[in-house]
Order: sequence, then C-alpha cells, then structure tokens
Amino acid sequence: MSDLLWPGDHRAGSLLSDVSVLDALVRVETAWLEALVAAGVAPPAARGDLATLVSGDDLAEVAVGAEAGGNPVIPLVELLRARAGGPHPETAAWLHRGLTSQDVLDSALMMACRPAVLRVQEELRQQVGRLSRLAAEHRSTPMVGRTLTQHAVPTTFGLKVSTWLSGVLDAHDALTAVALPVQVGGAAGTLAAVVELAGSTADPLRTTRDLTAAFARAVGLAEAAPWHTTRTPVTRLGDAATSCTDAWGHLARDVLLLTRPEIGELGVADGGGSSTMPGKQNPTAAVLVRRASLAAPHLAATLHVAAADSVDERSDGAWHTEWATLRTLLRRTVVAAEQTSALLQHLRVHPDSMAARLEAAGGVRSEQRAMADLRGVEPTGDYLGAAAALVDTVLDRADRALGRAGR
Amino acid sequence: MSDLLWPGDHRAGSLLSDVSVLDALVRVETAWLEALVAAGVAPPAARGDLATLVSGDDLAEVAVGAEAGGNPVIPLVELLRARAGGPHPETAAWLHRGLTSQDVLDSALMMACRPAVLRVQEELRQQVGRLSRLAAEHRSTPMVGRTLTQHAVPTTFGLKVSTWLSGVLDAHDALTAVALPVQVGGAAGTLAAVVELAGSTADPLRTTRDLTAAFARAVGLAEAAPWHTTRTPVTRLGDAATSCTDAWGHLARDVLLLTRPEIGELGVADGGGSSTMPGKQNPTAAVLVRRASLAAPHLAATLHVAAADSVDERSDGAWHTEWATLRTLLRRTVVAAEQTSALLQHLRVHPDSMAARLEAAGGVRSEQRAMADLRGVEPTGDYLGAAAALVDTVLDRADRALGRAGR
Amino acid sequence: MSDLLWPGDHRAGSLLSDVSVLDALVRVETAWLEALVAAGVAPPAARGDLATLVSGDDLAEVAVGAEAGGNPVIPLVELLRARAGGPHPETAAWLHRGLTSQDVLDSALMMACRPAVLRVQEELRQQVGRLSRLAAEHRSTPMVGRTLTQHAVPTTFGLKVSTWLSGVLDAHDALTAVALPVQVGGAAGTLAAVVELAGSTADPLRTTRDLTAAFARAVGLAEAAPWHTTRTPVTRLGDAATSCTDAWGHLARDVLLLTRPEIGELGVADGGGSSTMPGKQNPTAAVLVRRASLAAPHLAATLHVAAADSVDERSDGAWHTEWATLRTLLRRTVVAAEQTSALLQHLRVHPDSMAARLEAAGGVRSEQRAMADLRGVEPTGDYLGAAAALVDTVLDRADRALGRAGR
Amino acid sequence: MSDLLWPGDHRAGSLLSDVSVLDALVRVETAWLEALVAAGVAPPAARGDLATLVSGDDLAEVAVGAEAGGNPVIPLVELLRARAGGPHPETAAWLHRGLTSQDVLDSALMMACRPAVLRVQEELRQQVGRLSRLAAEHRSTPMVGRTLTQHAVPTTFGLKVSTWLSGVLDAHDALTAVALPVQVGGAAGTLAAVVELAGSTADPLRTTRDLTAAFARAVGLAEAAPWHTTRTPVTRLGDAATSCTDAWGHLARDVLLLTRPEIGELGVADGGGSSTMPGKQNPTAAVLVRRASLAAPHLAATLHVAAADSVDERSDGAWHTEWATLRTLLRRTVVAAEQTSALLQHLRVHPDSMAARLEAAGGVRSEQRAMADLRGVEPTGDYLGAAAALVDTVLDRADRALGRAGR
Repeated sequence: MSDLLWPGDHRAGSLLSDVSVLDALVRVETAWLEALVAAGVAPPAARGDLATLVSGDDLAEVAVGAEAGGNPVIPLVELLRARAGGPHPETAAWLHRGLTSQDVLDSALMMACRPAVLRVQEELRQQVGRLSRLAAEHRSTPMVGRTLTQHAVPTTFGLKVSTWLSGVLDAHDALTAVALPVQVGGAAGTLAAVVELAGSTADPLRTTRDLTAAFARAVGLAEAAPWHTTRTPVTRLGDAATSCTDAWGHLARDVLLLTRPEIGELGVADGGGSSTMPGKQNPTAAVLVRRASLAAPHLAATLHVAAADSVDERSDGAWHTEWATLRTLLRRTVVAAEQTSALLQHLRVHPDSMAARLEAAGGVRSEQRAMADLRGVEPTGDYLGAAAALVDTVLDRADRALGRAGR
Repeated sequence: MSDLLWPGDHRAGSLLSDVSVLDALVRVETAWLEALVAAGVAPPAARGDLATLVSGDDLAEVAVGAEAGGNPVIPLVELLRARAGGPHPETAAWLHRGLTSQDVLDSALMMACRPAVLRVQEELRQQVGRLSRLAAEHRSTPMVGRTLTQHAVPTTFGLKVSTWLSGVLDAHDALTAVALPVQVGGAAGTLAAVVELAGSTADPLRTTRDLTAAFARAVGLAEAAPWHTTRTPVTRLGDAATSCTDAWGHLARDVLLLTRPEIGELGVADGGGSSTMPGKQNPTAAVLVRRASLAAPHLAATLHVAAADSVDERSDGAWHTEWATLRTLLRRTVVAAEQTSALLQHLRVHPDSMAARLEAAGGVRSEQRAMADLRGVEPTGDYLGAAAALVDTVLDRADRALGRAGR
Repeated sequence: MSDLLWPGDHRAGSLLSDVSVLDALVRVETAWLEALVAAGVAPPAARGDLATLVSGDDLAEVAVGAEAGGNPVIPLVELLRARAGGPHPETAAWLHRGLTSQDVLDSALMMACRPAVLRVQEELRQQVGRLSRLAAEHRSTPMVGRTLTQHAVPTTFGLKVSTWLSGVLDAHDALTAVALPVQVGGAAGTLAAVVELAGSTADPLRTTRDLTAAFARAVGLAEAAPWHTTRTPVTRLGDAATSCTDAWGHLARDVLLLTRPEIGELGVADGGGSSTMPGKQNPTAAVLVRRASLAAPHLAATLHVAAADSVDERSDGAWHTEWATLRTLLRRTVVAAEQTSALLQHLRVHPDSMAARLEAAGGVRSEQRAMADLRGVEPTGDYLGAAAALVDTVLDRADRALGRAGR
Repeated sequence: MSDLLWPGDHRAGSLLSDVSVLDALVRVETAWLEALVAAGVAPPAARGDLATLVSGDDLAEVAVGAEAGGNPVIPLVELLRARAGGPHPETAAWLHRGLTSQDVLDSALMMACRPAVLRVQEELRQQVGRLSRLAAEHRSTPMVGRTLTQHAVPTTFGLKVSTWLSGVLDAHDALTAVALPVQVGGAAGTLAAVVELAGSTADPLRTTRDLTAAFARAVGLAEAAPWHTTRTPVTRLGDAATSCTDAWGHLARDVLLLTRPEIGELGVADGGGSSTMPGKQNPTAAVLVRRASLAAPHLAATLHVAAADSVDERSDGAWHTEWATLRTLLRRTVVAAEQTSALLQHLRVHPDSMAARLEAAGGVRSEQRAMADLRGVEPTGDYLGAAAALVDTVLDRADRALGRAGR
C-alpha cells in the first residue's frame, strides 16, 4: 500500500489498510463464533473458519454495500452467511449472533490499530536509545542558545537533544498507557442477545461473562464494559498519537533550522534531491515529519468532536466519523515514526560549526557578567550551568523507560 | 475506488485518486513540453505524448520513490526521462525544463480538483432545484417551531426548507467564486529557467508570458502569478468545500431529528438496515452526511495552518501537508454531495404528523396572545407571519442562481 | 481593555468588549423600538432612548443573569423593562416586541464586528501601500532563493515581498466580500410577532418589510432573510479573518527567519528586549503575529463545526458556541493587523547581507548552467528570470485594490 | 469576573483571571527570591514581599508593556525593581536573578491552573457520586434503546447513566494523571545564571538543585527538568480538559434529546426561560454544556499545533499562543463542570414516559424472537440481558475512584 500524496506512506505497509480491516472484521466474527461454541451456546457444527469465505477480492463489494446500512459489517455478514449457507447451515445461522455491527467494527478497528501502536512503540524505544546516545555523546558540546530566534546564552547540543528525548519519552508514556479494548454489547449495549442465547446454559449471565472474556482474549484486546457511546478509547489513542507527532515535530523543526546552510550545525547524510537542482541536499525526512505534526492535531480534534457528539445507544454520525480519521492518524503516525528514526540515523552533528556560531555570537556572555557583578566576582567558566546534570536526569529517565539499570 | 471505512466513498469514483493524480501530473508535463515546442523554445523533436510512457502500474514505484525528495514529481520525471530516453532523446532532454516539482504538483492537483468541484456544483444545482420545489410545495405546511429543543411558535415546513436552501445557495456561491489557478514559477518562483531557455527567442520575457498562458489554457486552469507560498487558492477551496458540508450537515441534523419515531414529521423511503434487526429503517444517508460535516472543518483548518506556516520560496512541510488533506476533503465533499441529493430524493414529508405535533404542543400561541393583548385585539389567524413571503425571497434567489426567470 | 496573556490585546481597545456588546444590544433594541413607532405599529409614547437606562455598571448583573436563559438578551430586556417601567410604561410594554433573543444578539454582534472589520480593512490597505513600496524599491534586489530550507536559485527581495502582498490582497478581497447582515426573524424566524403587531396597519406584510428594512438601515447592517440556523455570515467572517492571519503569518515566518543573526537579511528597528539580556533585540512583533496565525484556524473551524450542527429553529448549543469564539477571533485579527503594520514599519532591509549570502551560496547557478547547456550557449545574466515582471503584476493588482490608476 | 458572551463564565470567578495570573507571577518571583536567600545565594537583605509592590491597578500598565518584549514578565520585573529600588536595593538587585521570563510565566500559569484543576476534579467526584446514585436507582428502569436515531432493543436508564458515568470516570482519570510542573531553566534552560550565582556556595550544582526543589515546593508545583520547548505538560492538561468536556457533551446531548417534548423521558426542574415565551422551559444548562464540548477540542488542538512548532531554546510564537488558549480552555472547563453538576441536580427522570415509549416502539422484540427461534424456544423475560450487571461493573469502578469500599 502506498499513497502518492503522502510520501512515505508505504512504510505503514498494510497497517489498517482496507484488506487488514476486512481481515480483522472476519477474525472478530470467527473468534466470536468460536466463543459461542466453546461456551456451549452454539452447537459444535456452527464452528467455521470464516477467513476462507472472503478475500480481498470482496473488498469493493463490501465497501459499496456498506453505504446502505452505513457500515461494512452489514454487507459482510450477509456475504458470510450466503457463502457459508449451503455447506454449513449452522455456521450461517449462528455467526454474528449476539453482536451488533458496532461490536464488530470497533473490535476490528482496535485489532487493526494494535500492530500500528506496537510498531510506533518500537520506533519510540529505538529513538530513546539513539537520542540517549546522542545526548550523552554531546553532553558537553557547546552551542549558542537561541530564544525568539536570537542568540541567547550558551547551551549544549546534548541538552537540546535531551529536550527532544523528553518529548519522545512523554509520547512513549502516553502510548503505553493506551488500552485497546474489545467491544461487545449487542444491539443496545445490554448483551441481551447473548444472554438470551445463553439461556440454554445453567447460568446465562455467567456464561455471557465468560464468553465475552474468552472472546477478548482470542482477539487480543482488553476486556471492557461496552463503550458504544463512551469513546475514550478512541480519543485517548488519538491524543497519544498526537503526542508522538508533537515530539517529532519539535525535533524536526529544530533540525530544519540547524541544517540551514547559514547555520550548518547539523547535517543530513541522505538529503533528498530536487527535480531541477541535482546537487541540492534537502532535509526531506525532517520536512515530511514536520508535515505530519501539522496535520495530526486536527485529526485528533475530530475524534474529540465526535466523542462529545455521542448520543443514544449508537450515535447518528459521530461514530462514523471516527473510522477513517483514526486510520489516517495512525498510519501517519507510523510513517512519521519511521521517518523520524531515519532522520536520526542520518543526522550529522557539526561541533565545529556550533563552536564557530557560539564564538561569533555577540553578547552571549552579558548575562554571565551581570551575575558575576552581582556577586562582585569575575565571570569564569563556560557558563553552561547545570546543562550536563540536566542531561543526566533525562538519560536516567530514558534508562528506566528502556528497562535498563540506571547509569 | 472505494474505502471500507468511509461508506459511500465509491461515489467519488476515481476523482483525485492516485491514478487520477498521476495522470494529471503526466498531462501537466505533456502540456508544458508542448508549450515549449509551440513557443519555439524547445525543438519540435522534443514533442512527445508522455501518457504512453507511464501507467497505473507505475504508481507504487513513483509513490515509494517520492519519499527521497519529498514529492512524487521527482521520481516521475526520472521515470519519464528514462523511458523516453532511448527513442526520444530530445523529449527526455526537454521535458520538465523550466518547471519545478511544485509547479507540476500544484497544477496537477488543481486539475484533479476541477472535476470534483464541477461535480459538487452540479449536485448543488440539483439540490437547489429539489429544495426549491420542496419549499414551494410546503410553503404553507404548518409545523411547530422548536428552539433550544423545545416547542416555540408555529412555522412552516417550507420555511425550514428555505433555511436549508439558503445554506446550499451560500455554498454554491462560495464554490463558484473559487478559482483553480495554474502554478508556474520555476525553482524559486522567478521563471528564471523558462526565461533562460527562451533566450533563443526575440523577446524572452514575452515568450515566457505567452508560453505560460498557453500552458494554463492547455491544462484548463486560470492564469496566476506563482503562488508557491501564498496558498489562498488552497484555503479558499477548502473553505468553500466546508461551506458545502456545513449546509448539508445542518440539513442532515434536522432530518435526523424529524425522522425520529417520536416525531415522525419526515421519513426516508430507503432507510438503511441493521445487522441484527432486519425491519429497522435508519436514516443512513443523513447519518453519513452528518459524519462528513463533523470532519470537514478540521481538514480545512489544516489547510489554513499550513498556509500560515509558509516560508522561503518553498515551505518546509506546510506544503506537503496540503496534498492528501485537500484530496480527502474534496472526495468527502463529493460523497456528501451525492448522499445529500439521495437523501433529498428519498425524503418523505408527513404534513399530518406536523399538524398533530403542532396541535399537541402547548403554549405555542402564548406569544400571539401577548402580541394581540398589546394591540388590545383578539388573536386571529395561524400566526405564521411572513413565513410564505420569506420562502418566496429565498426561492427568488434560487431562481437567479439557476439562471431562471424570476417567479 | 487589555489581556495580560495576549500581549498587544489593548490595540483592539474596546472593540467587541463586553461594554461594546452591551451597548450594541441596547442600540439594537432602541433602533427596533424606533422602527416600530416610525412604522405606526407602536404608539409614539413607546419611543425611548434605552441607552440612558443601562451602563457598564450593569454588565455583571446582565452577564450573570444570562446563564438562566442561556443568553444575555433575556436579563437585559428584563432590566430595561423594569427601569423604563415607571416613567415610561409604553416603552416598557413595547420594547423588544417582535424580536427574539437571537435577533438582538446576532444583530448586535454583527454591529460590534463592523468597526473591527473596518479597522482590519484599513490596516490591510496601509499594508498594501507599504508592501507595494517595499516591493517596488527592491524589485531588483537579489537574494538567494530557499526551498525546503536549502539554497536554490536566486530571487529578489521584491519578489518575496510580492508574495506577501498577494496574500494581503487575497485577505483584503475576502474581507471586502463579507456582508454583515441584520437578524430579524422573531421566535421561530417567521416574523409572526411583527406581522401580528402590524395588524393595525393597512398591509401588515408590507409594513413588516418596510420596518425591518428601516431597522437594518438604522443599525448599519445589510438586509437579510432570517439566518438563525444558516450561519454563513459567521463562518464567512471567520474564514476571512483567518485569511488575514494566514497572510500575516506567512510574512511573519519569513521575517522571523531572515532576521536570525546567522542570516541577517532583514532587521527590526524596534526589537523587543529580554528580562535577562538587555541588549538582545527580538523580532517580537513577528513572534506575536505568528502566534495569532497558529490560533486563528482553530477558532474559524469552531465556527464551522457550530454551523454544521444547526438544528431546529434555534440550535441547542452550536449558536452559543459562536459568540465568544467570534469575538476572540476578531480581536486577535485586529491586534495582528496592527502588529503586522508595526512590523512592516520597523522592518529594515539589508541588501548587502542578501548579496553576501547569495555570493556564498554554492550551486545556485547550477540550474542556469543546465538550461544554457540545453540551448548550447553560455549562461549569462543574473538568472532572475521574470522576477521584476512578476512583481509588477502584483503591484498592478495592488493599485487596483487601492483604487489607484495603474502604473 | 464574568463574560457577557459565555453565559456562566462567572462560575469560574477569578480563576486564571488577569488579576490571578498577575498575583501568581508575583508569587513566583517572591518564592524564587526567598529560595535564593534561603539557599545562601542572595543576602538576607534581598528578602522582600513583592506582593505589596503591585496590585490589580497595575494590570493595564503591565499588560500594555508586555507587547514590546512579547510577555508580561518583562514589564512586571521592571516595575517591581523600580518600586523596590529605593527602600530595598538588595531586593531590586536580586529579584528574578537566575530566572528567565518563561520560567516565571510557565510556573505562574501552572499555579493559576491548579485551583481550576482542583475545582474540576471536585465537580467530577460529585458527579461520580450523583451519577452512581442515579444509575443504581434506575438499574432496572426499562426504556427503549435507540441507534442511529431509531428504536432498537430495550435498555435501562441505569445503563445509559452508566455510559455517562464511564466517561466522567475516564475524565477524572485523565485529570488526575496530569502533573503541573514548575519551570526553572534560566535563559537557555541550562540554569547557568543560578549556578553562577551559587558560585559562592560550597557545591554550586547541589545548591542549585536544592534551591529549585525548594522553589517548586514553595509554589506547590511538581519538580521537573526544564520544559521550555517540550510542552507535554500543556498538551496533556488540554487533552484532559477536553476529555471532561467530551464526557459532559455526551451526557448533555442525551439530555437535550430526552427532554424534547415529543420524548419527555427526562425533564429539567429549572428550565431556562425565553425572552418572548415566558412559559417555555429550556434545558439551558445542557445547551451551555454542549456549547463547551463543541469548542474545547479546537483549543486543545491549538495547544498541540503549538507544541509541535517548538524550536530553539524558546519558540518564536508557539509558546505565546498557549497562554490565552489554555486560560480559555480551563475556564470553560470549570464553567461546564459546574453547569453539568447543576444539570444533574435538576434532572428529573420520568420512568412512565420511558415505559410508554418502549411500549409504543414497534419491533423492539424482533431480535429477541430471532434469538429464541435460533434456540427453538419461546422468548421470555424483558430482554434486558446483562444491563444490571453492566451497571454494577461501572458502579464498582466509581466506588474505587471515590475511594469507597466496593459494593
């Protein structure tokens, strides 16, 4: 999968693609059917591997059929029933029983989000490692500090890297705190259909509880009360994704500045080319990462507006707004994650340029002189204050995040 | 083309699809090459129909290749040069000369937007017609007015329809005012390369002017000064699209309310089904239209944030944010346009229910009594005020918009 | 009026302040009462200058009282009636008759927006003048072009200014196209109360029409059909304001880059200071303008989300979202307008630095060589292409916008 | 404090008002000065209660003065120095030493946010209590479930309440997880000035560490590494506030629907009035809560866009965008918190109407029949499934959140 208008999209591969979502929808229906049988609610003959019944070739039919009822589960269930029907009438009769469309779609979306979240977490961990090494290496590399675009007092490149690292660690925290819950509630969130079907068992309520727990395990999602109209799992995921793009956007904007030829404190080893000037080396990865950071907040805000617009036992449009928005947000987050990692990999640090800019900067020691005057002493030293200690603090946090022994 | 997670997306067909955009990119390069030759800048042997050199099969390669330089034009031009190279060295040598990637991409995007805009305009015009008929038909159909969810004084369904119609007319105005400009500026917006190439002609500047004008005509776009970093064409298009979804969202929210079973003043003839309750008739089209209206403002805002972040002669991420955002916004607008038209087509008005609700509503005449008291007279009449005249005012505007003689 | 957390807010003075809005509310009620009397609907004794009845001292009471009914018009009308009551019973009896809260609030907001819009337009015009002079002056001042942060081919500072100017002209166009309509519809938008009251006249409908027209003239707003739930006037105003901040944000981001000490192609004569480094000269005005451009798109998007959420004859929250959002957006636009003008006034251009950077930039002539090679000639000239001519095109547009004879 | 255009704003009182922020700024400077003295860095004579030096009367001067340098700390420090100067030269000499404007402003904003956060948390806890009682009371009150606006299978009002409660608990979790950190970094985040000043002590780095820790305790904020350009504390607070308005918006939208006269399953005891129809009872609190939920996501998104735009050691506009945005977001959250509590207090449940609507709803048992058919039995019971058990699950979570023994 690729997207001509979002360069790098291929990095997200089939994550949350239509095919992946279709696959997840079928896996949800299969796992549920299996749970019904295992719980003794449906007969063993109902068992069936639904994955053999549909394929990517059915995508267009299901997608087009989704419009009439407003979601793709309705035509998919029809298709599955029709295809299972002849040879496996029990499968056709029992599949989807007890569920509502939203159960299937929400669960499948969470399933499809899971590998995307894991991929981003893995990238974040690698970035924590890379940034930690970079901060440690440049713990004492002096450079000019800049505030409101102008030269201020000196700082170190290590400290700057540690501000990027703090953001990446914050993003890692946020993403780690995200739970991906299963959705099982039935038509109005009461589980009435499951309980009714479980009427043949000794304790229908207990059977229902065990069945839904088994189903959650089977699809690899967290157990949860129905959240048909309480959309925190979606907004929290969206906010966490945005905390990632915030951190990367910050980093990218610094890189885009420091690789400018007039500054040249950083370089990119694999600068992208130009259609007209072959020798030009553009910090393309940083450009593309910054791009994502400009778009993500709006997608997350869409999820919040939808969450707040929840109504009834299933919303009248707000729910439908989420699906494609969440997919776009997560795919872009995955792409930006990899592009940030690539950017870091190809980043070159030019301490000489940093030293030269610091040397050339006028007045960066004026504050130091004022402080020394206050004490009635002469200014001495490099005026880097606690920079190295502050770097260490962030490195310690990074070590803990990576589960390493403290330094 | 379809999208499993945005039901109805197939209605937008191939509009702004990757294939369409690739095709537009190639058409831009072809038209430019032709203009170079026609202007006597490039030799006749440079002429070539580039469309035969690439196809949808090349999409993945171009898309993946787009990441290195940050946009798809760079790998596309390489591909075109490589393929033209052997048999048509002059074509290979001259294609893209004078242009920069952004010229090609911006022009191609505007070209790809054009049929989408035309489609939406056509739908808007049909809606104006349908809503005009509906408003005229129900010019005097009384119903209870509702404010802050509670019953207020009476109104007419025709007047309510006229408020929808006003929004649709506003959207039509906004979309009609949108210009889709060509982009030709060269590497830094100075047209330096074209002027340099035109050095062989008598008046290079004049040649350049004529050439770019001919190019604009060839690709069907408006002439414009380079707008590499002045992104009003994009934001204006985004705002106009959002004015469409605003109008439809308003209409859809009213329909979603009035088709509720407890109110039943409107009905939908083709209500969508349910995966668990076959007899259920959902106002699916309205649900899907409302969905679009919740998402569009955020996409338009993304375009504004990008516009304001313009810098240098080509921006460092803001430009790249626009492409996929604009595509998504326009495709959703097309889909919502058709779904709104379908919704209107299947809308059923139940004047009896309207009358019954009005009858049942308590206190809707209290204001009338207060007004009559003020005059010292007895209240008479249906208390519909100027409702019919207000409908007529909007119908007149609709007639003008459709270019019809006034009523 | 000032805002500690939005430096420069005092520039907007009392525009759209609570006092101004209260004043506008009272002026609306006064104008309406006068119109009722003038039309022969209310008796002459009803006439009254309501402005003498309330003052800024009543603000808190009205503001607190606004919560019960959800808007400030309800407590204001109560207050006016109570105060007018004794001496002027006819005034008390007739004021507000025929109107609904939304008529008064929407009309008053449009009235309060008007001087803000005019102020911004005036600033835009001054900026057009200033930018035109700057572009003309530097029509041939060469500087290095930059794309994706890296050096590209040469351009001129005049051409860069003309891209800012184009954005400012676009904003001027957008703001000029905005109409500020009056709102008169009565409780459900039917004008029923007015028509009922006008029952004493020969032709109540005609009386109503004349009365509302006279009212519109009196409050200085455009006539319009009721737009209680068709919120285009608000979204269009919001979009136009955002087109302003887009243009200024673009300009400010360029200034923030070019005034960096490592580049130094521009300077600011009145750079702001620092709390710790007295000698530091920050491009504060540009910082504050950029600030506004990051915030405005989200406020405009809020207006769109609200517009799309319209329902019934008065919305259940969407309408209420607009008021403070629109006020904040417009005040910030006024502040940014003045700060942009101040920024332009203090901008210093350093052609020597521009020349030096261009000289130092490697490879900026590589494209020129490639073009010359294609023609089989030697590259000559400054490779500025049509830069000067493109500047002239924008200057011509500016002249037309200012109503000046073409150059 | 009140806001004519955001009814209910007075509920937030002076929280985050200009006066409160000014007070917090002064308390930050005072606490810092005290910490300098206590650490033995500044002489005892430097001690001074700065709060006596400025008052609300100075607000306009500070606010206007804030524009030149871009933030209010610069003029405030000047003012404090000037006023302390004569009688307390040591105070004037030492105050603000070691800090940068951003340290003071960020710390003061976090201080000013704290009581707002605590207030919202308290309201959330009360809502948890009230909703728990409501859910328990109506654990078995049947009503018709509604999906996509149409009648679905039965549910209970208790279960609906538990979906609101889940959202409120999620919001409480989010807000509880928010840390409000102190900001101390000095001009470029290195703490260089403090370390320089602490040069007179035995171990300047340790002194600095102790001093900043003491300062954090004094202002009641969490210790933290400098976060000048890593803005997670701000975005996380914004996201948490939005999770609150999401939860309340959901609740309000349900209330706005169910109090419609045609449905009447809920009522509001203190319905707001109308300026024209005195007897009208509007669910005003719900309207105003919904209003906040439409606006908040955009404000939170603004904070994310700003966070991602961080650059250098202090950003060039992004930082400045946050202050007023965060204030507005938090004040609106406080107001919506109280309005939601008020709404819940005045909510009236009409089980008879719920029963009547359920009775009248056609086909709500069709799914039950289908399930029973599948099992080959007759449908029995109320088809409420696990509704009561699901309510209990949420009530248990609520008990834990309130620190109560489980039920």
